[in-house]
Amino acid sequence: MNQSTAHKTDTPEQPASPQAHVLKLPIENLQVDRGPRSYEIWLVTKLMRMAGSPPVRFNLWNNNVIEPEQGEARFTIHLADPKALRSLVANPNLAFGDLYSAGRLTVEGDLAELMETLYRSVHRARQRWPRWLDALWRNHNPRPTGVSEARENIHHHYDLGNEFYRLWLDNAEMQYTCAYYEREDLSLEQAQLAKLEHVCRKLRLRPGMTVVEAGCGWGGLARYMARHYGVKVHAYNISKEQLAYARAEAERQQLDHLIEYVEDDYRNIQGQYDAFVSIGMLEHVGKENYPALAALIRRSLKPDGIALLHSIGRNRPMLMNAWIEKRIFPGAYPPSIGEFMEICELGDFSVLDVENLRLHYARTLSHWMDRFTARETEVTALYDQHFTRAWRMYLAGSIAAFRAGSLQLFQVVFTHGDNNRLPQNRQHLYTFPAAPEA
Amino acid sequence: MNQSTAHKTDTPEQPASPQAHVLKLPIENLQVDRGPRSYEIWLVTKLMRMAGSPPVRFNLWNNNVIEPEQGEARFTIHLADPKALRSLVANPNLAFGDLYSAGRLTVEGDLAELMETLYRSVHRARQRWPRWLDALWRNHNPRPTGVSEARENIHHHYDLGNEFYRLWLDNAEMQYTCAYYEREDLSLEQAQLAKLEHVCRKLRLRPGMTVVEAGCGWGGLARYMARHYGVKVHAYNISKEQLAYARAEAERQQLDHLIEYVEDDYRNIQGQYDAFVSIGMLEHVGKENYPALAALIRRSLKPDGIALLHSIGRNRPMLMNAWIEKRIFPGAYPPSIGEFMEICELGDFSVLDVENLRLHYARTLSHWMDRFTARETEVTALYDQHFTRAWRMYLAGSIAAFRAGSLQLFQVVFTHGDNNRLPQNRQHLYTFPAAPEA
Repeated sequence: MNQSTAHKTDTPEQPASPQAHVLKLPIENLQVDRGPRSYEIWLVTKLMRMAGSPPVRFNLWNNNVIEPEQGEARFTIHLADPKALRSLVANPNLAFGDLYSAGRLTVEGDLAELMETLYRSVHRARQRWPRWLDALWRNHNPRPTGVSEARENIHHHYDLGNEFYRLWLDNAEMQYTCAYYEREDLSLEQAQLAKLEHVCRKLRLRPGMTVVEAGCGWGGLARYMARHYGVKVHAYNISKEQLAYARAEAERQQLDHLIEYVEDDYRNIQGQYDAFVSIGMLEHVGKENYPALAALIRRSLKPDGIALLHSIGRNRPMLMNAWIEKRIFPGAYPPSIGEFMEICELGDFSVLDVENLRLHYARTLSHWMDRFTARETEVTALYDQHFTRAWRMYLAGSIAAFRAGSLQLFQVVFTHGDNNRLPQNRQHLYTFPAAPEA
Repeated sequence: MNQSTAHKTDTPEQPASPQAHVLKLPIENLQVDRGPRSYEIWLVTKLMRMAGSPPVRFNLWNNNVIEPEQGEARFTIHLADPKALRSLVANPNLAFGDLYSAGRLTVEGDLAELMETLYRSVHRARQRWPRWLDALWRNHNPRPTGVSEARENIHHHYDLGNEFYRLWLDNAEMQYTCAYYEREDLSLEQAQLAKLEHVCRKLRLRPGMTVVEAGCGWGGLARYMARHYGVKVHAYNISKEQLAYARAEAERQQLDHLIEYVEDDYRNIQGQYDAFVSIGMLEHVGKENYPALAALIRRSLKPDGIALLHSIGRNRPMLMNAWIEKRIFPGAYPPSIGEFMEICELGDFSVLDVENLRLHYARTLSHWMDRFTARETEVTALYDQHFTRAWRMYLAGSIAAFRAGSLQLFQVVFTHGDNNRLPQNRQHLYTFPAAPEA
């Protein structure tokens, strides 16, 4: 397989049905009966050197072993066939995940730890890369995020089925975003409820206030706000599956008089509110829509209203990992802290508070990973092995990215620039524990 | 006086001696014996319309009165001569302060309130200005901030004399930066000590740690850290007057074994530290030096060190008010929140915490203003009437700018991007009151 063919097979149209969400590469003529050529071994050595010589051993299809050039190996990567080797070398960013999903690349050692080691090693090495290599590494084209593409992007991921997410998300309010481990020993359920409480406190909610939520997932925050703070919520989402769950759950909790779940794009939000909140949607908004988002928040927020955006972010502008963007989250782009602030500048907002919950997301993901691993048989029964491996890779890679510092989690609180009804300090966030008792 | 002459006389070289810091405009041929021409009245009306029709009446030298076009006047501005009127119209940003300092423009009503009203009104009106007007309004050239210019800029303001600042700053640790009014009823002294405590908590200081401070003023933070946290501090400053005070005070408090006050530019900081802190220096650094500042912090901070920058800032990029930049703070440029974050991006830092203390600075300035007003006779005895009026204008204008939201005060905490030794949450900032008992 030459490089141009590899590129061609690596970027097909996304399938739309949930059953076929993770791409399966065509596998044919794998040549597993021959030994590695010397140039193939040279390519792997070269790739590892480029990646900063991480402590990784390669075990090839015929049990040929390539030890790391320096130090002891802590992980072993098995490659099942010569084509796997060549795809990996040609486009490591994308092929690593695809080969792992296909079962043609397997790992001895903790997957998340291997990924963290690779992230840290590449990050350090990259500072010495020539410019062309750096450019090549980041060269991929994320999906557009216009109104209709956004529907497709969101459908791709969030409409996988409530049954699937219920297998491994918390059973308190089905939160698929970073939890808040106020204390290290919190359970996933406690930490997710603590997150909702922390957000409500940052918004300084009072009974009777009105809130608009952009991208409400399964509607857990809206229900928490209605239940604990007696506020009225308009919650927007374009995922049908999630909304069906959200509505049923609000009814069951007898909160439907306080919550309106709206199936519409956030760009169509109407009205003015005391609070604007969005948890884990900004990653899917796309930079080109920041001016529109800023204008939207500007017109949706009352003069003394408070807005909060909670999003995965970066320390510096960087494209989403190619594999995650293509196979898991089409259209995703986590803004750098500077780009995040551009939204606030565009809206002439005053930033009151930024909190970084990076390691909280690593812990959240570890909790998800534990549960996911325990339910893999059921996941495979719902989809197939390929899907299960892809999601294992996605969760492990995400743990690694947050631990290595290549992803951040920012909660940003802001108001209109001329609003002087501000809290005196941030004490009110810490007066009582945010998490419920176990 | 035509416009080009006005520009010429408005931008002379800055005098270097403290006694002549505030520029005195030449006053000759004031023509106070004639009535206003109709085009002069038209110009004032036009200026007020451009400024968004604030509730301001003009009382001219011969008692001609120009009422606001809409609504009731809440303030009266007296103009003492026709040239004052024309300078004001030609370059309101600069002339307002200069004329006030010269006593040719006087105000009936609270000066800070008038300024706040004008800031808010202009800010609103400006959104409808044509582009050329907007460009004209911001067209001035701030002073450069290279190593030698920085010395001159800092000397201009901070070497006015410790005697002068002692008249109206707090008598706890002579802080000339925003205090932290943890509670609304704190005294200036309590709030300044609370600020120092709040900063120490953000840095998570422990006994035996090492700290480097860039721009240490009269050395109060360094002494507080040594006294209350038992850390070793290298504190840099290029103001001789301030350093003389700082050293004497450290000796008096028997803290000189823990503190080294270094008379040098922050760019020459040597060594690696557990904490990097800078309170109120970034405003004087200049945007062109942000890459160097980021590189400096990067090399000065240990792998698990914490950095804190405390600075006046903006919601959007904007030049410093021309009068303040020319007459009071040469070279000053408060970064927008986005520009602030650029420093962190340039250093590959991870932003952990941003807090905005905007209204705390308005209150700090009000406390300073009260004390300044009570000591005006002494200030005038040290300098002269012109100086006293200029500083009154500067303090009032600053109160107004923070109240109207045209200035912000950001405290930004960050670490190296790959540092995982982070606090679990921000609870430690709020466990006990930061302010001492009254």
